[in-house]
Amino acid sequence: MKGDHLNSPKPEVLRVGICGLGTVGGGTLNLLTSNQQLIARRVGMPIEVVNVATRTLDPAKVAGVARSGTDPFAVVKDPEVDLIVETIGGFDPAFEVVKQALANGKHVVTANKALIAEHGNELFAVADENNVSLAYESSVAGGIPVIKALREGLAGNKIDWLAGIINGTGNFILSEMSAHKRQFADVLQQAQEMGYAEADPTFDVEGIDAAHKLTIMGSIAFGMPLRFSSTYTEGISKITPEDISYAKELGYVIKHLGIARRTDAGIEMRVHPTLVSKSRLLAKINGVGNAVMVYGDAVGSTLYNGPGAGAEATASAVVADIIDLARHQMAGATKPVYPGLGYRELDDNLQVMNIDAIESEYYLRILAADKVGVMAKISNVLQDHGIGIDAVIQKEAESESVPIVILTHLAIEAQMNKAIAALESLSDVTGSIMRIRLEPFHGQKI
Amino acid sequence: MKGDHLNSPKPEVLRVGICGLGTVGGGTLNLLTSNQQLIARRVGMPIEVVNVATRTLDPAKVAGVARSGTDPFAVVKDPEVDLIVETIGGFDPAFEVVKQALANGKHVVTANKALIAEHGNELFAVADENNVSLAYESSVAGGIPVIKALREGLAGNKIDWLAGIINGTGNFILSEMSAHKRQFADVLQQAQEMGYAEADPTFDVEGIDAAHKLTIMGSIAFGMPLRFSSTYTEGISKITPEDISYAKELGYVIKHLGIARRTDAGIEMRVHPTLVSKSRLLAKINGVGNAVMVYGDAVGSTLYNGPGAGAEATASAVVADIIDLARHQMAGATKPVYPGLGYRELDDNLQVMNIDAIESEYYLRILAADKVGVMAKISNVLQDHGIGIDAVIQKEAESESVPIVILTHLAIEAQMNKAIAALESLSDVTGSIMRIRLEPFHGQKI
Repeated sequence: MKGDHLNSPKPEVLRVGICGLGTVGGGTLNLLTSNQQLIARRVGMPIEVVNVATRTLDPAKVAGVARSGTDPFAVVKDPEVDLIVETIGGFDPAFEVVKQALANGKHVVTANKALIAEHGNELFAVADENNVSLAYESSVAGGIPVIKALREGLAGNKIDWLAGIINGTGNFILSEMSAHKRQFADVLQQAQEMGYAEADPTFDVEGIDAAHKLTIMGSIAFGMPLRFSSTYTEGISKITPEDISYAKELGYVIKHLGIARRTDAGIEMRVHPTLVSKSRLLAKINGVGNAVMVYGDAVGSTLYNGPGAGAEATASAVVADIIDLARHQMAGATKPVYPGLGYRELDDNLQVMNIDAIESEYYLRILAADKVGVMAKISNVLQDHGIGIDAVIQKEAESESVPIVILTHLAIEAQMNKAIAALESLSDVTGSIMRIRLEPFHGQKI
Repeated sequence: MKGDHLNSPKPEVLRVGICGLGTVGGGTLNLLTSNQQLIARRVGMPIEVVNVATRTLDPAKVAGVARSGTDPFAVVKDPEVDLIVETIGGFDPAFEVVKQALANGKHVVTANKALIAEHGNELFAVADENNVSLAYESSVAGGIPVIKALREGLAGNKIDWLAGIINGTGNFILSEMSAHKRQFADVLQQAQEMGYAEADPTFDVEGIDAAHKLTIMGSIAFGMPLRFSSTYTEGISKITPEDISYAKELGYVIKHLGIARRTDAGIEMRVHPTLVSKSRLLAKINGVGNAVMVYGDAVGSTLYNGPGAGAEATASAVVADIIDLARHQMAGATKPVYPGLGYRELDDNLQVMNIDAIESEYYLRILAADKVGVMAKISNVLQDHGIGIDAVIQKEAESESVPIVILTHLAIEAQMNKAIAALESLSDVTGSIMRIRLEPFHGQKI
């Protein structure tokens, strides 16, 4: 063990350095300042921000902080700093900042979901070698303490699955499309104007942000290394108001879910638009909120809901991690209390399944010629592929075509793909078929 | 410090003794056995049940446990036991079992909400003196890790308030009354037949169980000693299907809530039936589930939902506490990581307000003579007491009386009591007035 930081606790104060004073970093500095006395009462010693690095130094922002500058590595090297908060975002220089901080025997708290999901395996190894912690509650679902729930509160359970609305921008867009029958592009523009979506919205609307968060939660749930590249990722940009409307008619809401599930065939890790029964609590989470449902073999279903983003909400989770580490130091811990992903031994054998191998129910929207016998042909194709039909809506003809909406029973995705290809090759079927997965949450009460 | 248990960690195994093998104790033994390997992977060492005490010894139940008997104090004194699980319930002998275990330098994990709420102040002091932990996640909201959320996940926040559905029996009864317009006594009987309610249902339906849980959550939220005797407690036995129906007409659901709130005038701690807007997530929690909404100054509103009772769900929380303590031992902690109520220093100055001093909105159901001018008289009385009217329903006359339902604006309870007394003294008002508090959750999104 190189790090000896925890072996020489300084119980009088925990000294924090913050790298990056943007939304989350600035929120963290503010929260540690405004609630300093309260936090000291909870921990038993004060937590003090003693050094910050920010790209453009605004003296007003760092008033009261002993040292400040523009170089995050100066904070990392500061021997008078016990714990580094990384709120720079992205990979460069965040990766090096975190790695060097850990190598210097400092704990790191980060809100950087991309960094953890894509480089966490390497960084946790560095943390282990140096006997320090890399904490990341704020990287998933903003202020909702869902990492704690998975890693600690439900630690006695075999987690069978979890499903979450984990991108506030996407949920805001779908909620607005649903409430006001608006087009995706139109609501996206509004979300950008309101500051809910970035100028380049790809990370949010194409599901990459959600996939980062799901990757992290899935690894903690099942005890496997982070496998971001295996997480199936599909965004919401193709969802139309018509799909939302047909789903509603059938008793469903379309939500952008991240689903992680342990099955006999392997681990499912997938982010995609999903039909959810309108009676489920998840279906009732509207706007920029996040919610994660977790099923454990002992506890059953639990749900965690709250703000998934925002300066103060995310800072709440950053500060929770700092308080945890301060409490461990106060208790005289000489080693990290939590392994990086909540397991002392990860299971390398757990493999993420290809999306083709998963089993799901499906919503299909087919545009077909307005002729006698079309529905029979479609039904036959599905039957030939072993796919059962649960519900059908056939609407009135639009010009010469008629939209047919079908909900299927459970089917393997590869088989569904074949059936869709066969349906699209029917001369009576016009254009491509819209396919959205449906999650029944069979047997669940909430 | 008398206890030196944590100073001599035995990293090869954590040895657990269970006192009480009823629903929760039996569930804990089962869960520790069935998920033993998984738990060892999370902790880094096995957790083993080595001694159990149960009133009537069933050899089949304790197969695989090294030592067993009928005397809980034998388990407490067993030098080969590191941690005691108290799942006897009640005060006698649970209080002495917990106290002696702590005095013997053993950690204690308990599911006993009455014991913590009514004797926690004394027991936490014994734990402190002996440098061990008394953990009680399972005492509130069953399997939902809400103690962790308050004590750790939201520890950076000043908690302004929390409100919860924390008695599954009561919520089941109100849900059934609401869904099927049934009478209280009728649903209670069904709940007893289904095993959701005890033969003597007082603890559940009169709010005592909820008051125990609220007392615990409020102390952790605000950092004050446990003050069970100051928690206002009102049950659901007087709620009628008519009240539920009028509330519905006005856009509300009646829930049995525990509310803890920090105000400028003091701390509110109160358990009572409450009108909640049907658009709130809390209003959508039906059946035996529990849900707690917590508002922190940084995070905003968060909600925690799941099963509030049941052998396995409660055992999930017991085992979470055991795993926490095992991880602290693995990390070399020499002192408890969490102070009893989450604060190193409690604030003795925080006082719980008398119910007369709280401010609330109200639902009033008044039975009045079916005469011209009655509504004007009632309005005048409310106006004379400075109470504003938000909504009124006047129904058709029932024989010679007419039910008038009023929702008020915010009023101080003492003032409302005076107004109600004045209304009841009107010659046109028949019988006593039904008063139910209404919680608007102003400014909250969820």
